[in-house]
Amino acid sequence: MDLSSKPGENMLWGGRFTGGLDPLMVAYNESIHFDKHLFKQDILGSIAFARANQKGGILTADEFSKIEAGLREVMKEWEDGSFKIVPGVDEDIHTANERRLGEIIGKDVAGKLHTGRSRNEQVACDMRMWLRDELRKIDAHLVTFLQITTDRAEREVAHVMPGYTHLQRAQPIRWSHWVMSYGLAFATDLERLRETVRRVNRSPLGCGALAGNPFGIDRDMMARELGFEGLLWNSMGGVADRDFVAEELQWAAMLMQHVSRWAEDLIIYSTAEFGFVRLADAYSTGSSLMPQKKNPDSLELLRGKSGRVLGQMCGFMTTLKGLPSTYNKDLQESWEVMLDSVKTVSDSIQIATGVLATLEIKPEKMRAALDPFMLATDIADYLVRKGVPFRETHHISGRVVALSEQTGTPMNELTYDQLKSVDARFDKDIADYFDYERSVEMRSAKGGTSKACVLEQIAVMRQMLKSKST
Amino acid sequence: MDLSSKPGENMLWGGRFTGGLDPLMVAYNESIHFDKHLFKQDILGSIAFARANQKGGILTADEFSKIEAGLREVMKEWEDGSFKIVPGVDEDIHTANERRLGEIIGKDVAGKLHTGRSRNEQVACDMRMWLRDELRKIDAHLVTFLQITTDRAEREVAHVMPGYTHLQRAQPIRWSHWVMSYGLAFATDLERLRETVRRVNRSPLGCGALAGNPFGIDRDMMARELGFEGLLWNSMGGVADRDFVAEELQWAAMLMQHVSRWAEDLIIYSTAEFGFVRLADAYSTGSSLMPQKKNPDSLELLRGKSGRVLGQMCGFMTTLKGLPSTYNKDLQESWEVMLDSVKTVSDSIQIATGVLATLEIKPEKMRAALDPFMLATDIADYLVRKGVPFRETHHISGRVVALSEQTGTPMNELTYDQLKSVDARFDKDIADYFDYERSVEMRSAKGGTSKACVLEQIAVMRQMLKSKST
Amino acid sequence: MDLSSKPGENMLWGGRFTGGLDPLMVAYNESIHFDKHLFKQDILGSIAFARANQKGGILTADEFSKIEAGLREVMKEWEDGSFKIVPGVDEDIHTANERRLGEIIGKDVAGKLHTGRSRNEQVACDMRMWLRDELRKIDAHLVTFLQITTDRAEREVAHVMPGYTHLQRAQPIRWSHWVMSYGLAFATDLERLRETVRRVNRSPLGCGALAGNPFGIDRDMMARELGFEGLLWNSMGGVADRDFVAEELQWAAMLMQHVSRWAEDLIIYSTAEFGFVRLADAYSTGSSLMPQKKNPDSLELLRGKSGRVLGQMCGFMTTLKGLPSTYNKDLQESWEVMLDSVKTVSDSIQIATGVLATLEIKPEKMRAALDPFMLATDIADYLVRKGVPFRETHHISGRVVALSEQTGTPMNELTYDQLKSVDARFDKDIADYFDYERSVEMRSAKGGTSKACVLEQIAVMRQMLKSKST
Amino acid sequence: MDLSSKPGENMLWGGRFTGGLDPLMVAYNESIHFDKHLFKQDILGSIAFARANQKGGILTADEFSKIEAGLREVMKEWEDGSFKIVPGVDEDIHTANERRLGEIIGKDVAGKLHTGRSRNEQVACDMRMWLRDELRKIDAHLVTFLQITTDRAEREVAHVMPGYTHLQRAQPIRWSHWVMSYGLAFATDLERLRETVRRVNRSPLGCGALAGNPFGIDRDMMARELGFEGLLWNSMGGVADRDFVAEELQWAAMLMQHVSRWAEDLIIYSTAEFGFVRLADAYSTGSSLMPQKKNPDSLELLRGKSGRVLGQMCGFMTTLKGLPSTYNKDLQESWEVMLDSVKTVSDSIQIATGVLATLEIKPEKMRAALDPFMLATDIADYLVRKGVPFRETHHISGRVVALSEQTGTPMNELTYDQLKSVDARFDKDIADYFDYERSVEMRSAKGGTSKACVLEQIAVMRQMLKSKST
Repeated sequence: MDLSSKPGENMLWGGRFTGGLDPLMVAYNESIHFDKHLFKQDILGSIAFARANQKGGILTADEFSKIEAGLREVMKEWEDGSFKIVPGVDEDIHTANERRLGEIIGKDVAGKLHTGRSRNEQVACDMRMWLRDELRKIDAHLVTFLQITTDRAEREVAHVMPGYTHLQRAQPIRWSHWVMSYGLAFATDLERLRETVRRVNRSPLGCGALAGNPFGIDRDMMARELGFEGLLWNSMGGVADRDFVAEELQWAAMLMQHVSRWAEDLIIYSTAEFGFVRLADAYSTGSSLMPQKKNPDSLELLRGKSGRVLGQMCGFMTTLKGLPSTYNKDLQESWEVMLDSVKTVSDSIQIATGVLATLEIKPEKMRAALDPFMLATDIADYLVRKGVPFRETHHISGRVVALSEQTGTPMNELTYDQLKSVDARFDKDIADYFDYERSVEMRSAKGGTSKACVLEQIAVMRQMLKSKST
Repeated sequence: MDLSSKPGENMLWGGRFTGGLDPLMVAYNESIHFDKHLFKQDILGSIAFARANQKGGILTADEFSKIEAGLREVMKEWEDGSFKIVPGVDEDIHTANERRLGEIIGKDVAGKLHTGRSRNEQVACDMRMWLRDELRKIDAHLVTFLQITTDRAEREVAHVMPGYTHLQRAQPIRWSHWVMSYGLAFATDLERLRETVRRVNRSPLGCGALAGNPFGIDRDMMARELGFEGLLWNSMGGVADRDFVAEELQWAAMLMQHVSRWAEDLIIYSTAEFGFVRLADAYSTGSSLMPQKKNPDSLELLRGKSGRVLGQMCGFMTTLKGLPSTYNKDLQESWEVMLDSVKTVSDSIQIATGVLATLEIKPEKMRAALDPFMLATDIADYLVRKGVPFRETHHISGRVVALSEQTGTPMNELTYDQLKSVDARFDKDIADYFDYERSVEMRSAKGGTSKACVLEQIAVMRQMLKSKST
Repeated sequence: MDLSSKPGENMLWGGRFTGGLDPLMVAYNESIHFDKHLFKQDILGSIAFARANQKGGILTADEFSKIEAGLREVMKEWEDGSFKIVPGVDEDIHTANERRLGEIIGKDVAGKLHTGRSRNEQVACDMRMWLRDELRKIDAHLVTFLQITTDRAEREVAHVMPGYTHLQRAQPIRWSHWVMSYGLAFATDLERLRETVRRVNRSPLGCGALAGNPFGIDRDMMARELGFEGLLWNSMGGVADRDFVAEELQWAAMLMQHVSRWAEDLIIYSTAEFGFVRLADAYSTGSSLMPQKKNPDSLELLRGKSGRVLGQMCGFMTTLKGLPSTYNKDLQESWEVMLDSVKTVSDSIQIATGVLATLEIKPEKMRAALDPFMLATDIADYLVRKGVPFRETHHISGRVVALSEQTGTPMNELTYDQLKSVDARFDKDIADYFDYERSVEMRSAKGGTSKACVLEQIAVMRQMLKSKST
Repeated sequence: MDLSSKPGENMLWGGRFTGGLDPLMVAYNESIHFDKHLFKQDILGSIAFARANQKGGILTADEFSKIEAGLREVMKEWEDGSFKIVPGVDEDIHTANERRLGEIIGKDVAGKLHTGRSRNEQVACDMRMWLRDELRKIDAHLVTFLQITTDRAEREVAHVMPGYTHLQRAQPIRWSHWVMSYGLAFATDLERLRETVRRVNRSPLGCGALAGNPFGIDRDMMARELGFEGLLWNSMGGVADRDFVAEELQWAAMLMQHVSRWAEDLIIYSTAEFGFVRLADAYSTGSSLMPQKKNPDSLELLRGKSGRVLGQMCGFMTTLKGLPSTYNKDLQESWEVMLDSVKTVSDSIQIATGVLATLEIKPEKMRAALDPFMLATDIADYLVRKGVPFRETHHISGRVVALSEQTGTPMNELTYDQLKSVDARFDKDIADYFDYERSVEMRSAKGGTSKACVLEQIAVMRQMLKSKST
């Protein structure tokens, strides 16, 4: 096959070749540009591994001391920015660290660092430690967001606004009821996050390339040192499993779905037509051509990022789905989606927090959007209390609405006689029911719009924030 | 706008109209053809609601008795197949049941059934109860699958086969190690399933259309009666949340990803070229044109269904992402994906169970596929024990491989002198290391391929199956 | 392996087995419940195949006559509903038709029907013919929708409304400009559809199971008879390619994205707060609890279906991506997404057509929502014409907006002196520019909001509808 | 609302604020780090716009000359790397270029550059020009890949190998038939690409922010100068449409699905068990722990990238689906997926080209994998020629297979008497049919495996490559 032996001579495609290597392939293959972010986890993992190998007699106490000291020096170089990546040599963070360790403590001892250890388990270990650490930071950001949420909900509980279904005015609610409806969805995200972290935080160290460690290494000892909560129990699964990334992406996609819908509501509420809220300048921008505009860019970016994360989840799960078991290079795709989704989610929660904390509400616009028709169910409920069967009350209420429309009289301004003409069971006390505040207070079963109910939700959520932690 | 007033006269599109209704729209809108499957949950929810309304004084004891007896009769009709859906009237299960109840106990009392209750909360309640019940059945199917898995792994632990990475022969492993590598992934699915069920199993009853219940209904009492584990704490979220469907789909997509990869491995192992396993006739089919073929259709169907469920997850999350808060009719899309994904997953686990239980393995083909080169790491490990730095052992081992290739001598048949010529530190005992059984036994750190390690994994998993339940 | 030999005795899972078959697997495997919809395509394909086999000498003239007559009788049975599917025997449409043919003309001749033909090529042929036929119907529906679109746009070109970016009022536009902005997107869908149909409409007949036809069958003759526009040129690709389904799904997902956004705009425009449009009763529904509501269910269903189709595309492409070449049973998944997506798209276009044709617009609400600030760019443009650099005009215009806000004077009511105080280059003729109608007429470059421009768009689109056809 | 007025004082979240700005939001918002890649398109677009404004009298000839000369200088700075981005000022490529132009030619004239032009139309114009240019480069890469494909297919047409369905050996095929089965799928990608480019290549210039251009700019003239093939006919659609990105992503996802399946086949063919091909060293890598291994990393990366692109398509379409019409900031998400998918596809095609050009095939392994059972259909076909009905031949052939299995005699070594005992219609000439070469030659209908057929496919594809161009 002379075709394959001398690629450089194939004129159509081989022009870029030098010395038998395809530079595109080299670039396609190397991971140092993203896995360098995990230098710390990589070094801590190596120290734990070396310590366990000392315990197992693979390293002497002196060799281990040198390795640990050397690796801590390498870590310092990363931290102070003095580490120099050698292009073409340091293809990933593991080789970079080992190369540098060799320069510091000599290749003989450095060459023993990874005894019985494969790159596969190193990668898995680094990724899991890093992700665990980052998800814990996200947990803290989410808690802050929920604290702002409960604080606003509590402070602004007095304001009544239209509640919508199908984006049509339905029944009066408290503004804080809307705030808490999202708050509780995000609290569920927090609950799920903590379950996810526990699964991320399991140790693959000691799994080798696929078949396990041949030197009887103490996996439990390493796991404890690195803060893992348990072991991955099968070496093949241990090194090649990337479900922890998929699960993080699923979690992130669900959270971002909430972020998107929350943003969508606020975008609609900040239109001129609704006008219930006004974004702070810090979170909106003007138009180059239309100086009067104030665009809710922050909310739109949040909404757009939701699709991005959903795509990352879907794409990565597609990649996973197509693989046979154990390590395949396709898994390199797990890196960028993990790094990017963590950054996206972290930034998004913080920006949402800023938006919410600085949002101005317009209670007078909320109140102005209330509409007597929104009390139609209160009229039906009134009749229920007079003993009229529910289905019938619904039809009577409908006739009141119709009368209001036909006569052009707002429903709450219909005369008592007019109401009586619709149904004889209306009494004078019906007048009291044309009251938005009374309407929201009437819904006093748990989870309802009454003030006490909203405050109870806030208390429930504060309890959740207090009691849970990873 | 005469255009809009008389649709039937617009020749281009209006032909299908009769009496002002677009029959396509009617069909597009109605849900009875799928929500009828939830007749039981719908009726039990209605009984609980009526009982709570009796407690709250909305219904008399007598009215409640009639309603309960009537609803139980309706349930019986569904169960024995005598319920007749009235086309064009029974647009969903709720109206169907209420219509029939009215025929049985009279419209006056039946018309009080849903006092203070909206269709939105009914739908949410029915779906959550049904999904909880179905996921518990799936839990049982998954436990059975895992029992078959551990049983096979235990019984067949003696067989050694090639372990692959990148689909290239890497190191010897036990067949049971492969079996358990998937077993543990599925056990994690079981863990996730139980977390998911807890979130599905929260009660929306008493949330009204969006603003809560105006008659102070006792939501806790209803939740207890229906077996819910807690309340949804905000009425807006309570009625419109479909995250429980999205979470079920995420769970299903992850499980099916495992099913797909497990199937992929077995498809490859059942090729003529690998030949490690042979599917039972019950799970394979012949070819219409090629009588000699035995196609692993069951495994291919499982693999294909994985994409289907991933698509359902992705599509439904896309639908959710685009919505403003509370109920929007888009949520009707939650039905079919819930029903179909539950059926797909349930069937898939049961078929996978059948495939695994009836699979024939070919230990002699597994052994024949072992290749001396797969012991290259054992040679390196041997030298490590002689004190050679790990990185160096790797190069020496590589030279042994090269010598074997150059001389055309299988690596385990190289003479002691030949080995010595590569590195002087080889000793006579190297001969003992050219042994696949010894190789798998050497990997005796937790999670490794040694017999004790594999049995330990089995014990760990059996403990998981025992200790967890919802 | 006694485990595998007697599945029925394995108590854990085998209970459902009868006679060595897993009924779940049988159900999982059979396709008759969906492929029966293609009886016509299947029969026409068989006739064409038989005719070509007669030409090739494989069938006698008499045999062919019997086959053709018999198949036409089978077709009649399907058409009049008298065809009886035999459960457990007629696993797919091909076996069903051949079984019935055998009963009619005898097994000896019927047994020659599929000489040299595999089920794989039959399936591919049936699907392609059916999809081609259905896409042509969808083409007609889409043309109707676009005719309604241009008709409305032409008739209602006089009405001016706010144009939004970021859902904030930006500049005045014509209502018809909005209508046509979607119209042109849908016209591009029509263009893409016709390209797609051409690729669907290629013939796999004569490809065999994977390696081609051994009897020299005349593929061109069959393709012509069945209306195909060309051949699939490689037999392996020909029988197993399902890209035509994936391409249809991609096309459908793009169209449904447009449907979703169009619906979203109309949902927002039909809120009480915007109030620009009002859906006909035929396309909206009431609330069971809130009699005053009119919910845009049709638009919400359309919006929700968009996610469904996107999920089908994504899921099916995921299934495809994971396959080795040629036929794998995973491809059975192509059926349901093809059938369901075609139905969804077809229904959706027709419902959208009905919605648009019956939609009532509220020109007075559109006009009332215009806001003097929306003329800020007109002020800037005015100054440009006075020679002020564009960037500077933008700042001046911004100061006018600010003055209006500070003084609480609507921008168009600022006095000439007030304007002059902002910039000396304002002249008396500035008053003429505070005119929404003038503003839209000023944008008279192609594609702009002036009446002539909108009418030009309509003309362009009508030309597209006229000139293209498949 | 003191909460909103002083963000910095809110201790929980406001720490990062300086001067009222949220730096996270600033970073989230700016696009210069990716849109700078389009400096050339941005500048060419600006020159065309300025030229048209000169024609329309908005700029004098002198102003235009200065602008053009200045912009060309800016372009030179980008090209020679001397352009300095000013952080915090140059938020996107448009402001960066205008800022720099002002420094070179003075702000007065530079401030007239974008007269009547919005950032929205600039972005759309830049993206469309860039994407068109890049897709044309990809077109060239794909043509090269297809040339290598046809060259190999032609050169290696002699080699016969097993054709698989369900990954089970089915019928003999030529190696080149396999090569061409993918080649034709990729040729269809080329066809689709060219259709896509035509839709990308339409001009939004002159559409303004959403309502069009108020100075009567000559859009056709600008479109011609910039090489566009037509106009976008509605200004609202023109500036905000990102379907061209979605369509590019759909195209890319389809191509990458083919890349993935092609790679999957080659990965399987390069296992030790199949052994039909061997990757060049340039496209495979070793194992850190297992020196004997040669992993097909290039193919695995290609396969993994397919999921990435599918995810980008799915995610971006999800983002689009959730938007109201015209420009929303969510559209910023179109940038990264466009840039990354173009790079991924471009690299992937080039790497696939390198893999294919350097791939070593092992014809002797292909031949060794042929199995007499693969001739079972040839036996059936033999009997068809003797006049036996097809369905019956199938059963006879099945009995021959069974006899071979029972007696342990390879099917082609069964004696004439043995065959005769199965069916009396076997004649002595049956011996000639146990020949793989003859088998592939028998499939001589168009698209089949005979040499002439494969060469015809090659000729057809070469014709396609010649005749089409954009």
